[in-house]
Amino acid sequence: METPSTKSTLPLSEIAPIHHNHTEQNIANLIEAICGIDFSRDIDNCTSKSRTRHSPAKNDERPAAVLYPKTTAEVSKVVKACHERDIAVTSFGGGTSLGGALTATRGGICIDFKYMDKVVEVHEDDLDVVVQPNVGWVELNQMLEGKGLFFPPDPAPGAKIGGMIAMSCSGTNAYRYGTMKDWVISLTLVLADGTVVKTRNRPRKSSAGYDLTHLIIGSEGTLALVTEAVLKVTALPQNLHVGMASFGSLQDGVDVAVKILKSGHLLEAIEFLDGPSMGAIAQSGLIRETVEVAPTLFVKLAGSPQTVKEQMQFVAQLFSDHGANKVEFSHERRRIEAIWGVRKCLANALVTMKNDPSDLFLHTDAAVPISKMAELIHRSEKIVRGSAEGRNWFCASVGHVGDGNVHTAIICPQDAKGEAEKLLSGVQRLALELDGTITGEHGVGLKLTGLLADEVGDSGVDLMRKIKLALDPKCILNPDKVVRLEMDV
Amino acid sequence: METPSTKSTLPLSEIAPIHHNHTEQNIANLIEAICGIDFSRDIDNCTSKSRTRHSPAKNDERPAAVLYPKTTAEVSKVVKACHERDIAVTSFGGGTSLGGALTATRGGICIDFKYMDKVVEVHEDDLDVVVQPNVGWVELNQMLEGKGLFFPPDPAPGAKIGGMIAMSCSGTNAYRYGTMKDWVISLTLVLADGTVVKTRNRPRKSSAGYDLTHLIIGSEGTLALVTEAVLKVTALPQNLHVGMASFGSLQDGVDVAVKILKSGHLLEAIEFLDGPSMGAIAQSGLIRETVEVAPTLFVKLAGSPQTVKEQMQFVAQLFSDHGANKVEFSHERRRIEAIWGVRKCLANALVTMKNDPSDLFLHTDAAVPISKMAELIHRSEKIVRGSAEGRNWFCASVGHVGDGNVHTAIICPQDAKGEAEKLLSGVQRLALELDGTITGEHGVGLKLTGLLADEVGDSGVDLMRKIKLALDPKCILNPDKVVRLEMDV
Repeated sequence: METPSTKSTLPLSEIAPIHHNHTEQNIANLIEAICGIDFSRDIDNCTSKSRTRHSPAKNDERPAAVLYPKTTAEVSKVVKACHERDIAVTSFGGGTSLGGALTATRGGICIDFKYMDKVVEVHEDDLDVVVQPNVGWVELNQMLEGKGLFFPPDPAPGAKIGGMIAMSCSGTNAYRYGTMKDWVISLTLVLADGTVVKTRNRPRKSSAGYDLTHLIIGSEGTLALVTEAVLKVTALPQNLHVGMASFGSLQDGVDVAVKILKSGHLLEAIEFLDGPSMGAIAQSGLIRETVEVAPTLFVKLAGSPQTVKEQMQFVAQLFSDHGANKVEFSHERRRIEAIWGVRKCLANALVTMKNDPSDLFLHTDAAVPISKMAELIHRSEKIVRGSAEGRNWFCASVGHVGDGNVHTAIICPQDAKGEAEKLLSGVQRLALELDGTITGEHGVGLKLTGLLADEVGDSGVDLMRKIKLALDPKCILNPDKVVRLEMDV
Repeated sequence: METPSTKSTLPLSEIAPIHHNHTEQNIANLIEAICGIDFSRDIDNCTSKSRTRHSPAKNDERPAAVLYPKTTAEVSKVVKACHERDIAVTSFGGGTSLGGALTATRGGICIDFKYMDKVVEVHEDDLDVVVQPNVGWVELNQMLEGKGLFFPPDPAPGAKIGGMIAMSCSGTNAYRYGTMKDWVISLTLVLADGTVVKTRNRPRKSSAGYDLTHLIIGSEGTLALVTEAVLKVTALPQNLHVGMASFGSLQDGVDVAVKILKSGHLLEAIEFLDGPSMGAIAQSGLIRETVEVAPTLFVKLAGSPQTVKEQMQFVAQLFSDHGANKVEFSHERRRIEAIWGVRKCLANALVTMKNDPSDLFLHTDAAVPISKMAELIHRSEKIVRGSAEGRNWFCASVGHVGDGNVHTAIICPQDAKGEAEKLLSGVQRLALELDGTITGEHGVGLKLTGLLADEVGDSGVDLMRKIKLALDPKCILNPDKVVRLEMDV
């Protein structure tokens, strides 16, 4: 690779070998160079920064040190020092990632954003806030509520803004409010060589050059680290109501969801859990509610009293037409929290379905155009349920049906890994066949690098790799995520 | 530059010299190589593809040939052939660009997308359409209207989707519906070496790797050419009303706009024209209306009868409180078209204010957070009006006040160019001081490459240049736009 390529893409076969230097001496030298910045070399601490409950890592996949910078300047100092010493850099926020995006595959060091957790500015008139990366969306909304404001993206409750940007996340509000991509105005970045870039000021719109903000959203820490973000916020939904109903069949639940989507009524959220999901919740001990173990729709409504009344009548009629049981609508805060709490505890409830702690929790994140959603749910069900029958597997489907995003989950013994993964990969291919994506909101991480080319083509992956190498020529930022960097990794 | 850089950015001082080969022989060789694809070498035709009424070019700044590919494969064939021969490529759609984005600064060839003007698919249930680049937004909306659908971005009436993507445009609907960035699901791209990439399928959301779609939106033809786009569409606003009122002072008009914005009433559009703008329209002969030559607000309302009634009462009361004249609200289609037609003819009306055809039409595109908009308008007015007094200049301000985007225009003789540009650059710097942008919707083009670093810093520009060179190492795609490529250009 001596003569610079004139190509627009970089195939895996043409990438030069990557050299990191993670010797003890080099790490010690780094720690010395960044004196004044807190760090930890405790093995348990280091290990905990490289995995989550939902994304395990191999035993030796951990950083050699965890660093705790407190400012953009300190992050820049750390990254620059790593760049000079060929040391890989992962980062850690809420630790809720699902696809291995924070695994320290090659060791190196981890930047824990723990101390960068401040809301820096709130501009009520401009409907924006300036925050550091370790602000949680739950805490941000608690703070905004008193001002009548609201930040919509709602992934796992522990998620932090930095990770939410990295993964281009969404959640149950995405059907109404869009995803993280729609809620970021600008970013302060630390690039792979330590350079600091602020992508924009605070105007609501700008055509000032390349959209660096959106290039970084969803780049999973592989192109830059985010040290500050300007986020849009909006008015808190008024007159909030929540509804819940269970159905005799999967078909009925899906039919009701599709009819709501096609009606033109714009609800706040529409979520769908299948029978096994509800069973997991019922058995989990995580909630006090008594729930039906049957396919269940959850809806949120808000707006003027007239709007909510019309929407509620429409939805209630559909529920009734499809023989729904245990229908409840409520606008009492306590009931809203209880009902939505049923939906929100699902991820934790599924984990309790393991027969053995070593069992695997595997899942997909397929999203398709709305018109194809019913087909995705039915055919996924067939693929998974058909093969799982008679085995000691637990299988469930949960849909952000408002935006066509469906998670299919399998919990199975470790020795069934290959087979279960093959089934889920069939579901992902089905999503592509239906003009959709292999990942609606969880990101590529380590898990989907192999499948990404099925979605965007080899040329799409090679273009991403070209961008990766341009911005991070030494491949120190979160290596091996999004695009593969070596033939045999 | 023999050893590959390990930096994340590319400063102008470190870029290698760019070599194009635009000899007659090389161009003739290209034409031969792409046999079967329509082309024109007519000088007037070539010249017309390198300039617009609002963005003139030097005499020799024109492509040597205009090519008319009809498919993605043909565009790829042309670009690949140019890449092999070091020939620069500009492109042409509606020709409504304002900042020199289509100027063939170095000659080369121009791809005219004239024949790629088909709506390929309409997915009514998914609220999306698949279009070729030369579909106009006006024609698209005419086609969608019968289906009760609507595509919101509304720049100059002649603009085509390809150019709208290139410039990350918006228009009067942006306050309510957002900009072009919010309405594109995926793109089919031809990269600088001819590689074809489809950035996504059609799901509403995706976290599948880097957001190539948004990297290309606003890249002004410098990173890739767009040959097909999947666009979101939405339901046609129901019960549309338009309102218009003129005020005794600029202050009154701005105060009313700010009060509407702060009220929480979400209108469809809020536009503001100052007295001179209205004077230009009155004198232009472009409309049949009799209009007041005074600061004028234009509003659009839509929604349920109850919503529109409440909004209209609120707005009418504000108009009255601020002593508005000639207040009119209407929901008759004829009157809606007439009233909105007054606003929409402004760009053409301003051009008629030239005393001499050689006079210059210079303008800004500043956008600031809403809370700073009144200050932007007042201080811009002072900067420009103060210096223009007693001269034969025409100055006007027009604001997409709903999203804080204000255009300040000066029409002046050619010999005043330097002075007028200095004033407008003062307005642009003011926008930055107010936490805003130098360009809300027109793009950087040729005109703002010098100022871009004031907005995103040298490091931001150098990062953009690194991306440019990674994707287009020979700098054949629309050279000299967005980021400078040579010290002395």
